[in-house]
Amino acid sequence: MLFERLESAGLAHYSYLIGDGTQVAVIDPRRDVEVYIERAAKAGMRVGYVLETHRNEDYVTGSRELAAATGAAVLRSGEDDLRYGYGEPVYDGYTLNLGRLQLRAMHTPGHTLGHMSYVLHDPDGVPWIVFTGDALFSGDVGRTDFLGKERLDEATGLLFDSLFNKILPLGDGVIVCPAHGSGSVCGSAIAERTWTTIGLERAHNPKLQVTDKDEFVERVGRVFAYAPYFEMMERLNLEGPPVLGTLPSPPPLTPHEFAGRLEAGGPAEEVQVLDTRTELGFGSAHVPGAINIAEDRLPSFAGWFLTHDKPILLVSETNDVRGAVRHLARLGFDRVEGYLAGGMLAWHMAGFASERIGTVTVQGLCDRLDSAEEPWILDVRSEGEVESEPIPLAHNIHLTDLPARMAEVPEDQLVYVFCGSDVRAMMGASLLQRAGYDDLVVVLGGLRGWSSVTCPLD
Amino acid sequence: MLFERLESAGLAHYSYLIGDGTQVAVIDPRRDVEVYIERAAKAGMRVGYVLETHRNEDYVTGSRELAAATGAAVLRSGEDDLRYGYGEPVYDGYTLNLGRLQLRAMHTPGHTLGHMSYVLHDPDGVPWIVFTGDALFSGDVGRTDFLGKERLDEATGLLFDSLFNKILPLGDGVIVCPAHGSGSVCGSAIAERTWTTIGLERAHNPKLQVTDKDEFVERVGRVFAYAPYFEMMERLNLEGPPVLGTLPSPPPLTPHEFAGRLEAGGPAEEVQVLDTRTELGFGSAHVPGAINIAEDRLPSFAGWFLTHDKPILLVSETNDVRGAVRHLARLGFDRVEGYLAGGMLAWHMAGFASERIGTVTVQGLCDRLDSAEEPWILDVRSEGEVESEPIPLAHNIHLTDLPARMAEVPEDQLVYVFCGSDVRAMMGASLLQRAGYDDLVVVLGGLRGWSSVTCPLD
Amino acid sequence: MLFERLESAGLAHYSYLIGDGTQVAVIDPRRDVEVYIERAAKAGMRVGYVLETHRNEDYVTGSRELAAATGAAVLRSGEDDLRYGYGEPVYDGYTLNLGRLQLRAMHTPGHTLGHMSYVLHDPDGVPWIVFTGDALFSGDVGRTDFLGKERLDEATGLLFDSLFNKILPLGDGVIVCPAHGSGSVCGSAIAERTWTTIGLERAHNPKLQVTDKDEFVERVGRVFAYAPYFEMMERLNLEGPPVLGTLPSPPPLTPHEFAGRLEAGGPAEEVQVLDTRTELGFGSAHVPGAINIAEDRLPSFAGWFLTHDKPILLVSETNDVRGAVRHLARLGFDRVEGYLAGGMLAWHMAGFASERIGTVTVQGLCDRLDSAEEPWILDVRSEGEVESEPIPLAHNIHLTDLPARMAEVPEDQLVYVFCGSDVRAMMGASLLQRAGYDDLVVVLGGLRGWSSVTCPLD
Amino acid sequence: MLFERLESAGLAHYSYLIGDGTQVAVIDPRRDVEVYIERAAKAGMRVGYVLETHRNEDYVTGSRELAAATGAAVLRSGEDDLRYGYGEPVYDGYTLNLGRLQLRAMHTPGHTLGHMSYVLHDPDGVPWIVFTGDALFSGDVGRTDFLGKERLDEATGLLFDSLFNKILPLGDGVIVCPAHGSGSVCGSAIAERTWTTIGLERAHNPKLQVTDKDEFVERVGRVFAYAPYFEMMERLNLEGPPVLGTLPSPPPLTPHEFAGRLEAGGPAEEVQVLDTRTELGFGSAHVPGAINIAEDRLPSFAGWFLTHDKPILLVSETNDVRGAVRHLARLGFDRVEGYLAGGMLAWHMAGFASERIGTVTVQGLCDRLDSAEEPWILDVRSEGEVESEPIPLAHNIHLTDLPARMAEVPEDQLVYVFCGSDVRAMMGASLLQRAGYDDLVVVLGGLRGWSSVTCPLD
Repeated sequence: MLFERLESAGLAHYSYLIGDGTQVAVIDPRRDVEVYIERAAKAGMRVGYVLETHRNEDYVTGSRELAAATGAAVLRSGEDDLRYGYGEPVYDGYTLNLGRLQLRAMHTPGHTLGHMSYVLHDPDGVPWIVFTGDALFSGDVGRTDFLGKERLDEATGLLFDSLFNKILPLGDGVIVCPAHGSGSVCGSAIAERTWTTIGLERAHNPKLQVTDKDEFVERVGRVFAYAPYFEMMERLNLEGPPVLGTLPSPPPLTPHEFAGRLEAGGPAEEVQVLDTRTELGFGSAHVPGAINIAEDRLPSFAGWFLTHDKPILLVSETNDVRGAVRHLARLGFDRVEGYLAGGMLAWHMAGFASERIGTVTVQGLCDRLDSAEEPWILDVRSEGEVESEPIPLAHNIHLTDLPARMAEVPEDQLVYVFCGSDVRAMMGASLLQRAGYDDLVVVLGGLRGWSSVTCPLD
Repeated sequence: MLFERLESAGLAHYSYLIGDGTQVAVIDPRRDVEVYIERAAKAGMRVGYVLETHRNEDYVTGSRELAAATGAAVLRSGEDDLRYGYGEPVYDGYTLNLGRLQLRAMHTPGHTLGHMSYVLHDPDGVPWIVFTGDALFSGDVGRTDFLGKERLDEATGLLFDSLFNKILPLGDGVIVCPAHGSGSVCGSAIAERTWTTIGLERAHNPKLQVTDKDEFVERVGRVFAYAPYFEMMERLNLEGPPVLGTLPSPPPLTPHEFAGRLEAGGPAEEVQVLDTRTELGFGSAHVPGAINIAEDRLPSFAGWFLTHDKPILLVSETNDVRGAVRHLARLGFDRVEGYLAGGMLAWHMAGFASERIGTVTVQGLCDRLDSAEEPWILDVRSEGEVESEPIPLAHNIHLTDLPARMAEVPEDQLVYVFCGSDVRAMMGASLLQRAGYDDLVVVLGGLRGWSSVTCPLD
Repeated sequence: MLFERLESAGLAHYSYLIGDGTQVAVIDPRRDVEVYIERAAKAGMRVGYVLETHRNEDYVTGSRELAAATGAAVLRSGEDDLRYGYGEPVYDGYTLNLGRLQLRAMHTPGHTLGHMSYVLHDPDGVPWIVFTGDALFSGDVGRTDFLGKERLDEATGLLFDSLFNKILPLGDGVIVCPAHGSGSVCGSAIAERTWTTIGLERAHNPKLQVTDKDEFVERVGRVFAYAPYFEMMERLNLEGPPVLGTLPSPPPLTPHEFAGRLEAGGPAEEVQVLDTRTELGFGSAHVPGAINIAEDRLPSFAGWFLTHDKPILLVSETNDVRGAVRHLARLGFDRVEGYLAGGMLAWHMAGFASERIGTVTVQGLCDRLDSAEEPWILDVRSEGEVESEPIPLAHNIHLTDLPARMAEVPEDQLVYVFCGSDVRAMMGASLLQRAGYDDLVVVLGGLRGWSSVTCPLD
Repeated sequence: MLFERLESAGLAHYSYLIGDGTQVAVIDPRRDVEVYIERAAKAGMRVGYVLETHRNEDYVTGSRELAAATGAAVLRSGEDDLRYGYGEPVYDGYTLNLGRLQLRAMHTPGHTLGHMSYVLHDPDGVPWIVFTGDALFSGDVGRTDFLGKERLDEATGLLFDSLFNKILPLGDGVIVCPAHGSGSVCGSAIAERTWTTIGLERAHNPKLQVTDKDEFVERVGRVFAYAPYFEMMERLNLEGPPVLGTLPSPPPLTPHEFAGRLEAGGPAEEVQVLDTRTELGFGSAHVPGAINIAEDRLPSFAGWFLTHDKPILLVSETNDVRGAVRHLARLGFDRVEGYLAGGMLAWHMAGFASERIGTVTVQGLCDRLDSAEEPWILDVRSEGEVESEPIPLAHNIHLTDLPARMAEVPEDQLVYVFCGSDVRAMMGASLLQRAGYDDLVVVLGGLRGWSSVTCPLD
């Protein structure tokens, strides 16, 4: 018997392999699918089925990729009127036998209209695990605003029914396997309990502590930010994304080739330069116009700041860009056309100019507070973070809103950029700098650092 | 936060890493401990604590090894009057803080008198996971016969109290993390639910379906086989086993060196020749006197058939004996003094004689049934297997009892050896052959194969 | 700078990566090309060029595969009148610049008419390494019989000119990098000097110890066995073999599915059952009709005994058949349609019949020599081996000739099969058994074992 | 047969495995020896012998470590009057048989008095490879100044004899396997020909293009910098360095623990903070007092700037410090007592202050040239580099001399630090900053960048 959970780092996306005998089913695979094939083969099994709990909006599904590589059947919800470009429809009550195991489909709408959960029965027929997709997470529930604001109450009510009338009745002992863990964009408050159960959620999930459907709709129904890339993801996942075969291997570019591509792009923005180094190195020196998203933040932020219709060039700490390419492919960014061979060192040795973004320690900030100049403080943390720990005098624009709200930032004034640490602050500063702002300072350690020191009185 | 389960294949032994901040605790580590150090380091943490749920009898604990490598503190039960040679005693109610996590010791005697369970509270303070050691498994409970037959009822009663008054009251939603999974010698009936919860066990664990303590004592209290190596394991684990540093790397021996070691050993049994190939290759040809235990069966059977006080020489399919050495070290067999370089091919090319053990397919067996000779059928399956599927006319001696009960097998008659497949049958035949039996035939496919065919009527 | 030699185990095929700056050239790549892409990427380089020294006949070239994956240009000899289906022609004197390195093409016909060698000049311009393809090996030279017997002298003369007038004059200090090492089918006598130089070859290569062209033609011109798969390899390599993308991952088959495929195949030979276990396990029990070629012998023998136009089913020691699939793909065998999940154990447990091939130790053979029955001794070693160490009374048919010369083996007599050890003997016995022979015994240890013992006199 | 070269990255140190049958000899092993054991085991062999060509001064030899792990015999030169603390002496003409291979010791003094080369004869008895230690490199010869300036001519003369009367006469075709490749501190001019031969060296090694011994002594005899750590290495290698067992695994330290260790050290220099990030991140922000040596530069520079008698704390880009620990262990730095968990981000979030070192692009430098202030330009390149490409007005202090010659740098003036790129410049700046200099600017791209641009005329 095979049961395995695979985590896609950064996306906090969980996919699952379940198998018995020689047949394996994969639930909600990611796009780089070789891992599923290898695990199945190692166990002497083959991937015979791919199951989707719902049409995803936050990553490119690997269903078609995995089917193309293995001949597996793709099963997707038929409980929806949307037209999928691939797969076979499955309805509530559908049962899939895998050796001595059984997977039963349970229609659990709310997050999407067609959303399916799957209940796994163990070899003794005991209901053992429920795969809840984006219906129920550890400590949170799925968002219900994808049908639009006007249908928010309806969708939230559907989710209430799915949770309280279908999933929770399975029994407290049943293990809950959702599609996301803590850190996902799909649940604002997913808990750090990396494994959970219906009993733990019933008792401790804040969203489930309600007396009736009305209270649930009141508390849970909420419109969240809708990332620009969600639309692209939904479209790709509906049509079935292009089959990659293997991950692309973008070529190294010499500094002259790299610079040539920037110029050839015509208007500066034609090529997207993505610098995946950490914030300190980026602040020191980077290719003019580069956006900073550290490699391990790509799953969270690449979708917000990059566009699918322009090529991407990479700058990284080493020549190994496979991790970045993998993260980008999961979000459908397939047009990575090269990377700067030798990194910034090669760039500088070839005599090309770079830009920098200033930084200041919290101690340094203390020193400057006396100065006559009044700085403009930009806080790029999320609303929730700002509410729980506000920064006096700061202007709050959540990092993911910055592209749309940039006009609120003054162009002729020194801007201190703050976040919880300094990682998102540097990302935000890179967006501002690319848009022409040139008087930017990132506060190292951010609010956390600032809270740890006391500015000395004179 | 770090929570990870590691499985020692074959032993079906589970150990766990739990960590937060920079501190990791390891529960019930195995002896080859590098994996714990690597996982902790990869997460930017250090192993600060080693916890034992109980004094193990089925493998060599890695506590001292891990403490020697990392400086970690070893915490072991103080709820017992036994004198440990290492570690710090811990009592019921003891609380260990790991960053935002808490581990609370809960005395759960029954399997041993000092047995501890540990309840993990998540960052929100919710009781999340209980590490139950050998008290509660998926589908089974720990054996209670280690205090001896005369104290069986007392120990079983203690286990009832531990289970029904301490562990089950934690709540159905709590996840159960035992020290063993399906396939262990520590639970006769561990289920294949690789992850389980209190709710699932309360409802579906056959041993827990009782009305009161008396019924539990009646049904669960039972004396199981006591492997000869258990005593050695217990002694080692009490004193603290020798620290290895790294796994030994036994030298290759040429056929002449290998043969020389056999002779130098004086009486034939002085050196133990262990052949880790699968049963078909072994049956074809093996070094005279060799015992056959395939590499993946070493965790289950090496302890029964090998002795700790004589050196071991290995014969394997390839020159890579690291897997075998690892399995043996986990059981305290550190005296592996070499392996046959080039395997049986080199042995034969050097002109040394080998022995064989005959095999017969079930079809072949059909053909022979008519023959005048009356074979003696030896069934080496366990009592439980025999009860559920008996073989007519067969003599049952469970494989692990064979060394002690060998005199029951006739020396002057053809013996057909049966098991469920043919793996244990070949092991048993190798034990018999070493003891001088020479008219042995292993039935390929065993009972399973036999049940699949019908002998043609003449 | 990058210079690396990669060995394809078993084939004894060498390929090379050479690079400087960001450009890498690969010489004579094999078909599973991911390793070249990875090595180049790790060095911050891209594969820009693929060079072929000659049209290969003993493996499927990876040129098209590598070009498809990387966009590299394929350079192949233009010094021939053959029509290639891909690549750009290159002529004697052509120079390729790779950063500070230079590769110069040198036309060295003989093995084929278009054969190219490439001379690598180091960053200081010093002639450093010559890639000699199948012209010059360590201790041997390429065979010259591919143009046919009637043009043997002509081709051998061409090779003499290439060696003595072009390659050797490069100077004794120049390093020689051929396309094959010891163990290849392409040179009957390749030495074990895994690295060599012009000086070492000039002084010690037996084929170069001649006084003039006539002596060379006399001694070197010889017609070797022409494997049936050579023709397929040549055709594929001329047209450009199909692009695989990734290695195929054949599905596991249950014993019933496996047996079903055998029957569905109609006539027994429609499906080729290939058993990659070592000889002892195979001898004990195998699927009826299976051919035995141990995994590490596939590169040497698969081409002789398998056919490209029928599907292959695998039986192996474990469920991991990736090694076998890789070896087969290198020889163009892409139709691996599955493997027996669980191996022979599963086969027997499902009640299917197996066959065996008897074995005897050399000691056992001694015992039988007295018996009345006169055995027929089949020696499957090569002519060269037989010449240097004959077996009295044995009939010699080289293993690779056995399919064609099988009629010489008597069907109604006990046949002892001999080779140097017993590996090729078991392969030969499996071929005979498949063809209907049923009285076969493989001598364990073969001639080497036989030579180590003395039969006791009565 | 086994012949393999292993390169220790950064040190440009080569070690070799040679084996046949079951016996392997390792020549000049490094201290982290697990790789030798693994390679031998994989080939079914054991490490039976460890050979040293000479007492090394640039790294800690792994001879004792390897002997402790495998029981191998250590063979070291007896042709010297020095007292070794371990090993068995070997004299000119000594022959070691390894299966069909032979290794013959050849006394080749010059670099040291006892220096040995080893000539490997192939299975056919042909002299095939000469292991030349530090006598002969690709494009260079060993330095001869270790006996002191007064014995320089004598030692150089000895080397001449060793080269011209012993090594070169082996013949042009023999392959040369030295102890170092390009990039080593042991040869100032080692060529990039990664494999070489006597013929190539005789014809193209600049040091060998002499007419007689006098000319050789004149041209080659030269006193080079003597690194402070050489003495420690020599002492360790003479006594036999401490046996590690496995590489140390230093613990993660929280920012508060890390800061506590700095203060507990008393005088600031008591603990050495080593920051292994690349130069841009280090320049942005680092722990006060930290020295910057990027991980891949540790082999070249750690010995010059760190001391063996004080503990080391690490700061790195990730939590994975195994690479750094490995490099440091090879140089005998075993006292790595921890690393900053979470790196500079954690440091800043905990509110600790950091320091920075300014940088300027070459474009920025152009802009500043007009300014009134006269900068002091420090060029930390080597003499050789300065000679071939001088920087006008710059003051040259080779980086490795900087600790001793720091007083030459003015404390009250802006200092621009230059090297070929900017890596060594940042290292130098970190040394200066630690010593109290605070007006430092590193020129990005260094001389290479500067040469690529032209400052615009006003």
